[in-house]
Amino acid sequence: MTRRFVITFGCPDRVGIVAGISTFLAGLGAQIVEAAYHADPDTGWFFTRQEIDAATVPGDVAQLRERFGAVAAGLSEERDWRIVDTAERRRVVILVSKEGHCLYDILGRVASGELDVDVPAVVGNHPDLAAITQAHGIPFHHVPFPPDGKAAAFDRLRGLVDEADPHAIVLARFMQIVPAELCTAWAGRALNIHHSFLPSFIGAKPYHQAHRRGVKLIGATCHYVTAELDAGPIIEQDVIRVGHADSITDMVRRGRDIEKGVLARGLRWHLENRVLVHGNKTVVF
Amino acid sequence: MTRRFVITFGCPDRVGIVAGISTFLAGLGAQIVEAAYHADPDTGWFFTRQEIDAATVPGDVAQLRERFGAVAAGLSEERDWRIVDTAERRRVVILVSKEGHCLYDILGRVASGELDVDVPAVVGNHPDLAAITQAHGIPFHHVPFPPDGKAAAFDRLRGLVDEADPHAIVLARFMQIVPAELCTAWAGRALNIHHSFLPSFIGAKPYHQAHRRGVKLIGATCHYVTAELDAGPIIEQDVIRVGHADSITDMVRRGRDIEKGVLARGLRWHLENRVLVHGNKTVVF
Amino acid sequence: MTRRFVITFGCPDRVGIVAGISTFLAGLGAQIVEAAYHADPDTGWFFTRQEIDAATVPGDVAQLRERFGAVAAGLSEERDWRIVDTAERRRVVILVSKEGHCLYDILGRVASGELDVDVPAVVGNHPDLAAITQAHGIPFHHVPFPPDGKAAAFDRLRGLVDEADPHAIVLARFMQIVPAELCTAWAGRALNIHHSFLPSFIGAKPYHQAHRRGVKLIGATCHYVTAELDAGPIIEQDVIRVGHADSITDMVRRGRDIEKGVLARGLRWHLENRVLVHGNKTVVF
Amino acid sequence: MTRRFVITFGCPDRVGIVAGISTFLAGLGAQIVEAAYHADPDTGWFFTRQEIDAATVPGDVAQLRERFGAVAAGLSEERDWRIVDTAERRRVVILVSKEGHCLYDILGRVASGELDVDVPAVVGNHPDLAAITQAHGIPFHHVPFPPDGKAAAFDRLRGLVDEADPHAIVLARFMQIVPAELCTAWAGRALNIHHSFLPSFIGAKPYHQAHRRGVKLIGATCHYVTAELDAGPIIEQDVIRVGHADSITDMVRRGRDIEKGVLARGLRWHLENRVLVHGNKTVVF
Repeated sequence: MTRRFVITFGCPDRVGIVAGISTFLAGLGAQIVEAAYHADPDTGWFFTRQEIDAATVPGDVAQLRERFGAVAAGLSEERDWRIVDTAERRRVVILVSKEGHCLYDILGRVASGELDVDVPAVVGNHPDLAAITQAHGIPFHHVPFPPDGKAAAFDRLRGLVDEADPHAIVLARFMQIVPAELCTAWAGRALNIHHSFLPSFIGAKPYHQAHRRGVKLIGATCHYVTAELDAGPIIEQDVIRVGHADSITDMVRRGRDIEKGVLARGLRWHLENRVLVHGNKTVVF
Repeated sequence: MTRRFVITFGCPDRVGIVAGISTFLAGLGAQIVEAAYHADPDTGWFFTRQEIDAATVPGDVAQLRERFGAVAAGLSEERDWRIVDTAERRRVVILVSKEGHCLYDILGRVASGELDVDVPAVVGNHPDLAAITQAHGIPFHHVPFPPDGKAAAFDRLRGLVDEADPHAIVLARFMQIVPAELCTAWAGRALNIHHSFLPSFIGAKPYHQAHRRGVKLIGATCHYVTAELDAGPIIEQDVIRVGHADSITDMVRRGRDIEKGVLARGLRWHLENRVLVHGNKTVVF
Repeated sequence: MTRRFVITFGCPDRVGIVAGISTFLAGLGAQIVEAAYHADPDTGWFFTRQEIDAATVPGDVAQLRERFGAVAAGLSEERDWRIVDTAERRRVVILVSKEGHCLYDILGRVASGELDVDVPAVVGNHPDLAAITQAHGIPFHHVPFPPDGKAAAFDRLRGLVDEADPHAIVLARFMQIVPAELCTAWAGRALNIHHSFLPSFIGAKPYHQAHRRGVKLIGATCHYVTAELDAGPIIEQDVIRVGHADSITDMVRRGRDIEKGVLARGLRWHLENRVLVHGNKTVVF
Repeated sequence: MTRRFVITFGCPDRVGIVAGISTFLAGLGAQIVEAAYHADPDTGWFFTRQEIDAATVPGDVAQLRERFGAVAAGLSEERDWRIVDTAERRRVVILVSKEGHCLYDILGRVASGELDVDVPAVVGNHPDLAAITQAHGIPFHHVPFPPDGKAAAFDRLRGLVDEADPHAIVLARFMQIVPAELCTAWAGRALNIHHSFLPSFIGAKPYHQAHRRGVKLIGATCHYVTAELDAGPIIEQDVIRVGHADSITDMVRRGRDIEKGVLARGLRWHLENRVLVHGNKTVVF
């Protein structure tokens, strides 16, 4: 893929915003490769994402940010924007426990080049997934979370994450409840995969809950981590059909494929700056 | 479709039950057209459904019931069974309010012969759907449910239903909470369509709840009516993908197609005696 | 829904087109309610659809067309555009044969107000669906298509369609192959529902073909009618899972629900001017 | 999972077969864990699969085979059956080319214990996937297929496969057309994943074909390999929705997830003896 500058912008909706942005870009000679717009009638908020061929824009991303910043300031007092240069490689830190299916899946995508990112660290509260991580040439950090030492463990985890300065922190079936303070520090960067179709079956053992209720579909949800458990902005969800013949073991096994797919899509969209958060909801362009 | 006898049978699982039933049927010369079995490891309960070509069985359904009853008694002290003759036409009573999409859908299926049933009555707590019902040659009964006269209204409704003696009572977006007493009287015959993927968004205005939570899929659930609201045994569920561009109005509109499909399948399976209830869960053969 | 002007525009892609259009609209004070853009890298063609709150634009649709025409001419020599006023009611003519499920479905949507259109005529080559059509207060025309009188029948059909001057001509399981001449006359307005996942199983009896091949999914395709059978631009497709237990009769029955849904979505998108045709492909905004 | 004996049996349908089999099993005291039946009205063939708790059956699998063989002979002159002991580990040989996504997926499932099989060999006609294979402790054999040396290469491949004596030979995007002779030798054991929804887009570059046709769904098909290209009995298929914004590159990338899932399910069902082939179709229990 050729190098691109990705602009995401949000502000209270009014006449003339698209004109302002597109006139600015046309003035630069910028070739728009992909563009999306959404005006939310409930919140009155306007969202846009523009992907621009970097080769058509004079100067580097810092200059584009400066120029666009001036335009943006003229468009709206209240605004939220970002410009990302796809030439800057994305870094992803992955947090795991014992269950490896999401980790295997992400590492496979990275190894095959489908997901073109660096993974500077995998952190596990159990050592089980060290070998496969290292086989991919990625450092594995074992950080145990004993009941009486969780605060210290989270401190160490935070240090490891800070060191990597990642664009995404993926809770790939991490199984530890992240403290509110860390949720704040990682806001908008930490993605969790929950193994149910939220808001059904919040919390522990969702497949057991689903089996007990006798639902005919089970699902998974990728969402941003917030202080309230399993209640953050939803990025992606999916389901599969189950029946009376599916035991809890079958649900756990079959659900893994949905978890992997939902997490992979959510992570890709996040890394491509396709996910704009507003309140507790997402716009996914 | 040729005439069939449909046997459904459940009992605590043990060795020899299939042999007992199939030896009995083979002894009669009964041609099994379709057969399904399920042994539930959690409850230890065994379920089977056998569809038999009626022409291959000597005698009528009453005789078959008598003979099978003796065999069943020998198989298990605790047991639950039924034999249905497909030559006996099924009767369906439909309860509606103002929203017509489920009613239109069912009437279209009946009119085209896809759903080969009699509809002796449609009852509405509003008169809006009288004309389309009558255009299909079906009596429409308007039973208003004023806040201070609900008990009397339910009495009248119960009378209308009793008169029709239906195999299925379909709450096709009926919008009234059925009293516990009536739930008991209609147990196993009353099907509701709820416009969410239960157990998410129980109760009123589920699309509004879904929109507020920012889910990426919306759904519908067909379940048997029980005294606890939206908590009865689930027969069928389905979902469709929604996005940030879908307003509540869009969700309501798009959800209708899921509601129609889920209700139609649930109703068909119920009428074909494919749904076996055990505890608060269903086996759907 | 409030009154809207819907602009669809396509031209060879180059820098400045979005700026040109959006600056024009901002200059008018037009509130954009919904906007979509697509630049196709294969054909080098740019597409956009803009939905505008009519109340924010001075003048009527004719004036907007005149003004926009001047702008469009300045943007590109080669161009394709249209502006539709949602205040002008859409007219839909439906062509049927004996199978009624698609007709029932569309009439139900019209009657319930979900599909806010006029249906000035239903034409059937068999009289079977006259009663249900007339029950909805819609004129039904029986035009037989005898083997030796097809040309005359198509002439009569053409006359009936011309008289209604419809925005959409829906072949709702019409079962007659439309002559090339009529395909040309109806280009971009005639929608067919084919009961397979095209390009699999072109032509007659697709469910029989699917059953013979042993596929695990069956589908339906809504496409614009062109002179080459079942080869026109595809608007929408969907599938459902089938298994070894599904007979051809089951496939026919279960497939109907997919046909209805696919046709309803395709028709809605067409009537909302969401479908832009370029070559033999569609952009669906 | 506890040890099981899995019986699959097929013969021309007639009254008394289920009774014969189930009476035999009841006589042994065999606990049936899972049972499925299908009578095909088109071919008149009867199929069954019975999963039995091995601990409830006296003797080993050889004795069960001998006893069941006698019963089966009494049931039908024409018959096709097999009894598998789940205590015997399954062996899977995987054939690959350059594209690794299916290999990564299978190896991840094996490593995590989800797919409880041995993989004695991976064979690649390119060396690209040697490292990941070896990282899982599995021998990788590079067998080049030069245009003028294909016959010798297939001989070598055959030798490698014969040595492993596998229950399944998985063509995980192998990209070489298997000669008829080998198709015969591997009949019923060789599974291919084709990256389209067959019978659409047979042969090379199906995503390119799909993109050109403008379909709105793309898919994948897992089928048994037969001498006729992409025409063998279909085991499993699935699709995902695509739109005008999906380039061929997007389709290739997004299609991979469908390929992986379809292949994984097809392989699991094959290894669990859930797939019964009859003519060119499968019954999947």
